[in-house]
Amino acid sequence: MMISNSTMLLLEEATDYIGICYEELGKSDYQKEVRLLEIKKEIEHTGTYTHSFEELEHGARMAWRNNNRCIGRLFWNSLTVFDERHQTTAEGIFDALVQHIDFAGNNGKIRPAITVFRAAQENGESMRLWNHQLIRYAGYETARGIVGDSSSLEFTKRCQELGWEGAGTAFDILPLVIQLRGEEPFLKEIPRQSIMEVEIGHPEIPEFSQLGIKWYGIPIISDMMLEIGGIEYKMAPFNGWYMGTEIGARNLADEDRYNFLPAVAEIMELNMQSNRSLWKDKALVELNIAVLESFQEAGVTIVDHHTAAKQFKNFEKKEEVEGRDVTGNWAWLIPPMSPATTHIFHKPYKNDLVKPNYFHQKAPYQF
Amino acid sequence: MMISNSTMLLLEEATDYIGICYEELGKSDYQKEVRLLEIKKEIEHTGTYTHSFEELEHGARMAWRNNNRCIGRLFWNSLTVFDERHQTTAEGIFDALVQHIDFAGNNGKIRPAITVFRAAQENGESMRLWNHQLIRYAGYETARGIVGDSSSLEFTKRCQELGWEGAGTAFDILPLVIQLRGEEPFLKEIPRQSIMEVEIGHPEIPEFSQLGIKWYGIPIISDMMLEIGGIEYKMAPFNGWYMGTEIGARNLADEDRYNFLPAVAEIMELNMQSNRSLWKDKALVELNIAVLESFQEAGVTIVDHHTAAKQFKNFEKKEEVEGRDVTGNWAWLIPPMSPATTHIFHKPYKNDLVKPNYFHQKAPYQF
Ligand code: HEM
Ligand code: HEM
Repeated sequence: MMISNSTMLLLEEATDYIGICYEELGKSDYQKEVRLLEIKKEIEHTGTYTHSFEELEHGARMAWRNNNRCIGRLFWNSLTVFDERHQTTAEGIFDALVQHIDFAGNNGKIRPAITVFRAAQENGESMRLWNHQLIRYAGYETARGIVGDSSSLEFTKRCQELGWEGAGTAFDILPLVIQLRGEEPFLKEIPRQSIMEVEIGHPEIPEFSQLGIKWYGIPIISDMMLEIGGIEYKMAPFNGWYMGTEIGARNLADEDRYNFLPAVAEIMELNMQSNRSLWKDKALVELNIAVLESFQEAGVTIVDHHTAAKQFKNFEKKEEVEGRDVTGNWAWLIPPMSPATTHIFHKPYKNDLVKPNYFHQKAPYQF
Repeated sequence: MMISNSTMLLLEEATDYIGICYEELGKSDYQKEVRLLEIKKEIEHTGTYTHSFEELEHGARMAWRNNNRCIGRLFWNSLTVFDERHQTTAEGIFDALVQHIDFAGNNGKIRPAITVFRAAQENGESMRLWNHQLIRYAGYETARGIVGDSSSLEFTKRCQELGWEGAGTAFDILPLVIQLRGEEPFLKEIPRQSIMEVEIGHPEIPEFSQLGIKWYGIPIISDMMLEIGGIEYKMAPFNGWYMGTEIGARNLADEDRYNFLPAVAEIMELNMQSNRSLWKDKALVELNIAVLESFQEAGVTIVDHHTAAKQFKNFEKKEEVEGRDVTGNWAWLIPPMSPATTHIFHKPYKNDLVKPNYFHQKAPYQF
């Protein structure tokens, strides 16, 4: 086979990656050279190449370490990597996803993990998940406004087109939708016992429970692409645990999401007539306390933004010791609540792209 | 006189500015052409040119409108501009500064204003103010740590070198320091009766007053350079009124400024052993309520960050109607408290530089 431009590029990316990866893993120059020759041959014959498990594992970890938006990177080296590249059927994939959920959940002591499925083929086509996160609430447009999570409106509609029917509550768990090359999308509900949810109450405000707020325990991003050494894994769902503000200061608080601040302010009997009573800020703090305390009570791992910022500072120090520059996206790293109380607010970060990394990709149902 | 590169550049900047300024002021093309010829002649003869009052006034207002970091820009067209370009003595300048303070203060109903002094001469030298803000607290390094405002440490030392002695409290008002070309810096205290201060108490937490916190009423930035049509006004102090978070979420709260969150948390009897009690966030909200309420009580204009964000949204709308792009610096525009509750957090801004504008310049005592 001829070496085309794209395979040249792939070889370059592979060479870059194998160089850094093997050095970090303490392998010898000889091992590196042997492996690169092997990769070159495979690319020449097939147009692509296949990562060893070790390369896949370390690449997924490096990609986490390199993601500029993530404040949780201190723990990059503890990521558990599941290799499911052999899966070819929707049922097999479905089972692997449920296994991921169960492993990550671990009865509440959440474990960061990623499950990597077959990479995109030479023509760019790939198996894909339609879900934004494996566990996520549906959103419905109704006559009395949006019910549920507005960020799920479009995907919910697609599920309904595929025959799914939600109960219509504000917290319906969406089914998994798996798309294989050339096949109809495969839709199936996650077994109920695999789904961990936390009811949100407030330790000092009993009326809080009457709001009927809950949230799922594990954020498992399933629509991003993992790129390692030029290979694109378009189906590679990964999870950490939540930072409280993601739920309490965004998902539940944003006006165009669940918009719970007015309801919280009402049970707190705050003066909502005046901006300067800072009722939004007060309600926001109590909503976030409620989230943190409720997860804690339920025994589900969660981190507050102050602790997460301290952990990130540790990460920065460790990376400096290793001689690696920490890149970062300031606007994403600052927490959406009291940001100036964290060190992150007070320093600049270089938002340079380093690979391997996780990338956004077009939703498969928008093609 | 020959037209040098720098005067060519000046003529270009002047032409750009007069073009926009005269259009916005509804003047005719003929008026514009006449004025540009005049400016060209003046530049050819003197190497510089002199703004009419109208050009100065509109330029200072446009510079405000163009400043990407300012959330208060809705009111750009109401800026009062004082022309003090005739001042040549330190005493005359001092009196003009005190007049600015009194006009702006207006018994608490604060009026946005700028006082413009003589522009930099051809060699770049200029009269300068050493103060960062006209009214600002001193900061001292002492055996028991920093007393006062750490952001004033260096300037306070310079004042001491010039013979000034502060009382040594956490809230000593610094003197004005005026530097004329080739002269020793002139230092003089602002008359006590011109200084408006607000003691910070909390409407529902009486112990708050025991912390002995206060802040001055008017922020008057005095170290930035106003550039209009290529002319650099290095001494042009300007003021608006405060947005509460500037005081409550930064000056009084930052760990390396007044660091009052632990003291506030203590009187609130919060659990400071645990990050996840969100004691910092709780103390922050109450400190900011205290600031807003105390200013209100004292009859001194102040705006909360929610109202300021709404006003900024109005500004964006108005500019759109006028057919002008709004540029902005997201990181500065988001308030340092509950930022995601404002619309600013949820949209991108282009941080392009548009002139006229206000620029940072090197502190004169660092030459
Ligand atoms: C272990 C606990 C973790 C915490 C507390 C954490 C925290 C966060 C937070 C707060 C964000 C910003 C989210 C937002 O504002 O929408 C974020 C983004 C991100 N994190 Fe982490 N993270 C964790 C684990 C992980 C893991 C295991 C990975 C991948 C292996 C990862 C990859 C990412 C990526 C790619 C983003 C950017 C998402 C996007 O662009 O939309 N994180 N993380
Ligand atoms: C009328 C009320 C005003 C409000 C509420 C307001 C609010 C603000 C705020 C909150 C900031 C960010 C400050 C910081 O984070 O340190 C800012 C920055 C700024 N404002 Fe305004 N402002 C007002 C009036 C003015 C006026 C009258 C001018 C000039 C004529 C002005 C020019 C600027 C400039 C140049 C900055 C950037 C300062 C820097 O780079 O350090 N503002 N404003």
